Amino acid sequence: MNAVIDRLRRTTELIVGAEDLRERLESGRPLRIKYGVDCTAPDLHLGHAVNLWMMRQLQDLGHRVVFLLGDLTTRVGDPTGRSETRPVLSPAQIDANAASFLSQVSLVLRTDPEVFEVRRNSEWYDAMPVAELLSLFAQVTHAQLMARDMFRDRVAAGREIALHELVYPVLQGYDSFAMQSDLTIVGSDQLFNEQLGRHFQQRLGAPPQAVITTTITPGIDGRAKQSKSLNNYIGLTDSPRDKFGKLMSIPDSLVEAYARVYTELPLETVAALAAATGPAARDAKLRLAAAVVTRYHGAGTAKAELEAFRRTFTERTGPAELPELVVGQERMVVLELLRVAHPSASNSELRRLLRQGAVAVDGVRVEDPAAVISVGGGVVLKSGARTWHRVRV
Amino acid sequence: MNAVIDRLRRTTELIVGAEDLRERLESGRPLRIKYGVDCTAPDLHLGHAVNLWMMRQLQDLGHRVVFLLGDLTTRVGDPTGRSETRPVLSPAQIDANAASFLSQVSLVLRTDPEVFEVRRNSEWYDAMPVAELLSLFAQVTHAQLMARDMFRDRVAAGREIALHELVYPVLQGYDSFAMQSDLTIVGSDQLFNEQLGRHFQQRLGAPPQAVITTTITPGIDGRAKQSKSLNNYIGLTDSPRDKFGKLMSIPDSLVEAYARVYTELPLETVAALAAATGPAARDAKLRLAAAVVTRYHGAGTAKAELEAFRRTFTERTGPAELPELVVGQERMVVLELLRVAHPSASNSELRRLLRQGAVAVDGVRVEDPAAVISVGGGVVLKSGARTWHRVRV
Repeated sequence: MNAVIDRLRRTTELIVGAEDLRERLESGRPLRIKYGVDCTAPDLHLGHAVNLWMMRQLQDLGHRVVFLLGDLTTRVGDPTGRSETRPVLSPAQIDANAASFLSQVSLVLRTDPEVFEVRRNSEWYDAMPVAELLSLFAQVTHAQLMARDMFRDRVAAGREIALHELVYPVLQGYDSFAMQSDLTIVGSDQLFNEQLGRHFQQRLGAPPQAVITTTITPGIDGRAKQSKSLNNYIGLTDSPRDKFGKLMSIPDSLVEAYARVYTELPLETVAALAAATGPAARDAKLRLAAAVVTRYHGAGTAKAELEAFRRTFTERTGPAELPELVVGQERMVVLELLRVAHPSASNSELRRLLRQGAVAVDGVRVEDPAAVISVGGGVVLKSGARTWHRVRV
Repeated sequence: MNAVIDRLRRTTELIVGAEDLRERLESGRPLRIKYGVDCTAPDLHLGHAVNLWMMRQLQDLGHRVVFLLGDLTTRVGDPTGRSETRPVLSPAQIDANAASFLSQVSLVLRTDPEVFEVRRNSEWYDAMPVAELLSLFAQVTHAQLMARDMFRDRVAAGREIALHELVYPVLQGYDSFAMQSDLTIVGSDQLFNEQLGRHFQQRLGAPPQAVITTTITPGIDGRAKQSKSLNNYIGLTDSPRDKFGKLMSIPDSLVEAYARVYTELPLETVAALAAATGPAARDAKLRLAAAVVTRYHGAGTAKAELEAFRRTFTERTGPAELPELVVGQERMVVLELLRVAHPSASNSELRRLLRQGAVAVDGVRVEDPAAVISVGGGVVLKSGARTWHRVRV
């Protein structure tokens, strides 16, 4: 059964309880894999999918994913608005979000009842007397909780922690006991809470779950973690074309990580793609994009997207069929030209495009806002990673 | 109604919400006075009784004491034994302790249903869903709780705080809301928790209780707070004789505080007692002891005890009828003599008696453990504040 763990290792950062996990895999018993989520509106991206694909591999071996909706905590009011971690949701919102979550999850996971189960933690908390909850609290210390990064950071920054936020990890930990989790696969930011799960299982006389944390890969900007607010991620529900285009826009330095973590390409192939330079680097990115699109939409769609991309974009002149921009003068300052191309952008946004080297005329980069462009018989203006215009007088 | 508050002021340290309290007293409505206790075995002493007498004054004006047993938290298991604040008790122990508490309380308070009510906080917590408890937690921050002295001290000393201990003040605070407390009279160590009561009442739209904290008076050793482990207190259930004897043993410096806080003697009388010196100081102490015994056991008993004390004890030779100690030698080292008088005491305890000046032979203090005593025709040995023997060969 080392083979199973070895296969998971490609996207594993850390395994807590590896020996237990090996034994349980060898026992032949179907494992219960905790997939705990909160009830906020989901927008799953390739980063989340890393964990889902690992669960999918285990499903294909007969193990069961328990999709656990943490609905209890989302019903907790916070009239002060101090809680930064979880908004308060109505039952209808919770149901809507859960449905959306399930539909996104089903893009990767199997949802047939043999290997998939949906639970809500209100099942056990609604029936729990306050005295029993306090007994759980007696199993954990203030210092243990304050060891959590997020809490330490907040205290250091002089920000408040409401008491209910402080106790959430305890609830999340007890969930592992209540649902008899054997294993959970999470981002490293959840390691603390899931280790509390092990703590509670041991305290309450149950075998502790193994915890696998997965590799976190930066967003398509190559810098920050994928996040909604930065809009630097590839969503599972993005169209094949958007996925393909976003993958083509990543910096070369990301090709290795993306190919390793987001595809199943053999590791030798990944290494070759990462080593490619010059025109081959572009081909490597095409290969990566096709592999990712294949994973989610099948080989046929990937091939079609690859051809569409090749047909549309060329190295120097941009896509074959471009929107036309008709101007009144033959010679124009480049900033004026950009203003015509992006009527709703601010001056400072246009200057930033220039500064970032994102502007080119007939394939030649222009950085000086005062540069004068001769439109003549027509030129191709590139302004931004994927915006092209044909400019005519 | 300022008269009521003025009368309470004699033993008041601090009033939080004094203006509210004044208004409520003026409204003529009977107030609900929270008297919250935990369920440990009680041994109420004069210090506790200060608060009880204030409540009694208010009962005599028609206000109602709500004796609130915090039984919920005593049912919380702490299998690690880490909790330092509250032991776990069985329902039978809780009932037995509650009965003992009530019988002691009734030495001061009226317990007729017009002005006395018994409640348990399990009444509201047993019915409370976990989600509602978490909503309460949302009303208070980690920083607010950690402001409590006891928690700060523990953290500073590197000792642990179990999570259930951290949340207890929240429960105690919510109690004030649930039982509609108008006022609570507590030791200053409870101020923090009771201010949380005000906090919850305000948050939940109820008028906040006033909090009176009372003067804390040292134990009969004149140094430490009265406590069971130091055995330096006068229990409400102590016999009249023990009360009288213990009061006669206090240092002169305590007479003022004890007379002011533990009796209703006019303040001019208190000042006169405190100013007494020489033989008059002894008379002042007799007056104090009689006043305290009068308060708990009536004037008749107090008079009898005063006379018994006078009859029994004389300044130089101790009580008239003393237990006899027959020794084999006519001359003995004082330490040997003490060993005969206190067969179960250790050597170091006997040496401490000598060092403290508690040993006298025929009224002459002996401090040197090697001093040789001539028993001769018999001497009176004093060893400790109230232990006398007649020693014969």
